[in-house]
Amino acid sequence: MRTDFDIKNPKKKFKKTERVPPKGYDNANDFFEDMYMDENMIWMGQNTNHLHDDTIANAMIDAIRMKTYCRYPAPEGFSELKKLVLKDLGFEDEEVLLTSGATESLYLCMQALLTPEDNVILSDPGYFIIGDFANRFANEVRYVPIYDEKYGYKLTPDLLRENMDENTRMAILIDPLNPLGSSYTEDELKEFAEIAKENDIYLLHDVTYKDFAREHFLVENYAPGQTLTIYSFSKIFGMAGLRIGGVVSSKPIIDAIKNAVVNDLGVNIISQYGAIAGLKSKDVWFEDMRQTCFENQRLIKEMVDTVDGIFLPVYPSDANMMVIDIYDTGINPKDLSNYLIQKGLFTREGEYTSDEFGERYLRVSFSIPTEEIKIFCEEFPKAIEALRK
Amino acid sequence: MRTDFDIKNPKKKFKKTERVPPKGYDNANDFFEDMYMDENMIWMGQNTNHLHDDTIANAMIDAIRMKTYCRYPAPEGFSELKKLVLKDLGFEDEEVLLTSGATESLYLCMQALLTPEDNVILSDPGYFIIGDFANRFANEVRYVPIYDEKYGYKLTPDLLRENMDENTRMAILIDPLNPLGSSYTEDELKEFAEIAKENDIYLLHDVTYKDFAREHFLVENYAPGQTLTIYSFSKIFGMAGLRIGGVVSSKPIIDAIKNAVVNDLGVNIISQYGAIAGLKSKDVWFEDMRQTCFENQRLIKEMVDTVDGIFLPVYPSDANMMVIDIYDTGINPKDLSNYLIQKGLFTREGEYTSDEFGERYLRVSFSIPTEEIKIFCEEFPKAIEALRK
Ligand SMILES: Cc1ncc(COP(=O)(O)O)c(C=O)c1O
Ligand SMILES: Cc1ncc(COP(=O)(O)O)c(C=O)c1O
Repeated sequence: MRTDFDIKNPKKKFKKTERVPPKGYDNANDFFEDMYMDENMIWMGQNTNHLHDDTIANAMIDAIRMKTYCRYPAPEGFSELKKLVLKDLGFEDEEVLLTSGATESLYLCMQALLTPEDNVILSDPGYFIIGDFANRFANEVRYVPIYDEKYGYKLTPDLLRENMDENTRMAILIDPLNPLGSSYTEDELKEFAEIAKENDIYLLHDVTYKDFAREHFLVENYAPGQTLTIYSFSKIFGMAGLRIGGVVSSKPIIDAIKNAVVNDLGVNIISQYGAIAGLKSKDVWFEDMRQTCFENQRLIKEMVDTVDGIFLPVYPSDANMMVIDIYDTGINPKDLSNYLIQKGLFTREGEYTSDEFGERYLRVSFSIPTEEIKIFCEEFPKAIEALRK
Repeated sequence: MRTDFDIKNPKKKFKKTERVPPKGYDNANDFFEDMYMDENMIWMGQNTNHLHDDTIANAMIDAIRMKTYCRYPAPEGFSELKKLVLKDLGFEDEEVLLTSGATESLYLCMQALLTPEDNVILSDPGYFIIGDFANRFANEVRYVPIYDEKYGYKLTPDLLRENMDENTRMAILIDPLNPLGSSYTEDELKEFAEIAKENDIYLLHDVTYKDFAREHFLVENYAPGQTLTIYSFSKIFGMAGLRIGGVVSSKPIIDAIKNAVVNDLGVNIISQYGAIAGLKSKDVWFEDMRQTCFENQRLIKEMVDTVDGIFLPVYPSDANMMVIDIYDTGINPKDLSNYLIQKGLFTREGEYTSDEFGERYLRVSFSIPTEEIKIFCEEFPKAIEALRK
């Protein structure tokens, strides 16, 4: 008999980035649910987008009225949607796998491609669920500290070279980077591509925030056959709660990932109709939405410049979120975030995106109506003064 | 350098039940998409449910109008929904994890609980994706042939005893069984519970079709702490394309599964609103819907009794689908299913649910309007006569 195992209390454990819920909550789920239920809360804590008109909503309502959802979707998603995603990326020969959010694609890449000897490179700060997933299938995730002006607050090609070894199988480029909004130049991506080709490693290029960037490039074009492009409908399309995204890569890699599929019965069909409507109408709303976001971050920058002891490491941000460094005020970001919640403003403390630098900053997203940004810009300096040590 | 691995052509492979797409199709996805796009196709191939009024649809439309989907849902799902699921099962102390379909729950159970030494018991016929998932984490899935009157077309406690050994970690009870519609008596479940307790094995009780059964029992009540109850909104609630389901178990087990979570950002929020509306209104529509299903299968039985060489292994079925055995006609189920598609009837050949017995039967689901069942009952005997060898 196996003695290592208590069937009523299984011990198989994966490394998981755990966050302590705010005071008054037993667990993070209850906290998020309370936030969610508060309709008046100004939503700057999740990098979500609240600037859309009814185009996407109406397409989904039509699909619901027709009871399309009684049937199962085709397991790999609508071909129309896959074609639209390729067109959005300017790709031709690549293949698309649609999943329940980019999140599921991230998971599938790790499951399909990593083996227990491998290690993986990820920046700190960064989007940590990617590292958690990699940890389930690889030997180790190497978190490279990048919160430093001298690196431009991002993983540089030099940092990758310094941190990799012969067991490095994958480098993760979040571009633009959650939480900082830093992004890669074309030259940097070409250099990453060279490193990847010389060393036989995968580049996982998570472009969830690409459409908020002033300029954006795709490393698939420089390292085809070993790049995985992670695509999300949560941010520019404002569809976070609909859980749709995907992974785009060359056919052999997508085939390997399909082999590891979890949602064998496909992706929510209503979300697929919404995604099609979003991509088809993108030309109509795209520029206005970006302009609103740039104006919103300009207002935040103006406000930040008036407050002692705080600064924006990256400005302008190429994402729909930015980091406000508050370290010199002596304020703990968690206290600040809890204080702002009392004022109806939901933001996110640094520890959600950094182990090493989480004490330094608050992350705020700004793809919300400008009137709400103005409220934030009024309340934020007051909060700093109230809490300043 | 590692020589085992061609980065442009990854070879890490999972066992996957592959099905040959029908003639004229390169891959199964295109075939399903064509089926899906045909609005007039009578939908008897996926055990889906087409009998609902607008209650669930309207709740989802309201949630879309309010743009609830711009935010992320709480990662573990709405507490109201979790409570309603527990109530539906009559459980009190158990916990619920909501996932993108029961499918994802099945996957997570395997990922969280199985180790490479384990083996798992599953019936043949059965729902094979469960075995495919188990295969990714366990040493072996043992498929136990049950297509036999003497077993009642289901996995019996004796069959489990005969097929298990000291490395058996999990027995899978699909109840009612896809594809046959056989189900377990309370005494049988008590016996399974005894075996599980004596031998330290998990019982995975997939009750996706429970509400179509004349009577249904939950093995969680007899083997708590080592039972996983798999719950789906796809069938009785008619929500297949919305991808929502869950797993219910004791706290330590759910905690272990949460640790292995894939959709870290939660389940589609619109589907959750639909699921809440479905559970809250269940009393109103439940009995009528069951009666329609029983009447529909009675009509099919009447028709089958008039055709030579075919029979229903299980009647009445306790699910919303049944198996029509056509072996003695010499007809290949695939040919029959393709023929019926030409007549606007989508059914499913046996190979989707059995390696060993797939050549014997066609599976048809009947939770569709009775007028459509009447068309099926007219066309089916003609198809048999046209193809009979
Ligand atoms: C870098 C990055 N990738 C992926 C995701 C998840 O996207 P999705 O909602 O499509 O699962 C996020 C969400 O915040 C993210 O920041
Ligand atoms: C036994 C069984 N379990 C689970 C599922 C999948 O359910 P869901 O649509 O909730 O993923 C099916 C679908 O046919 C099934 O037959």
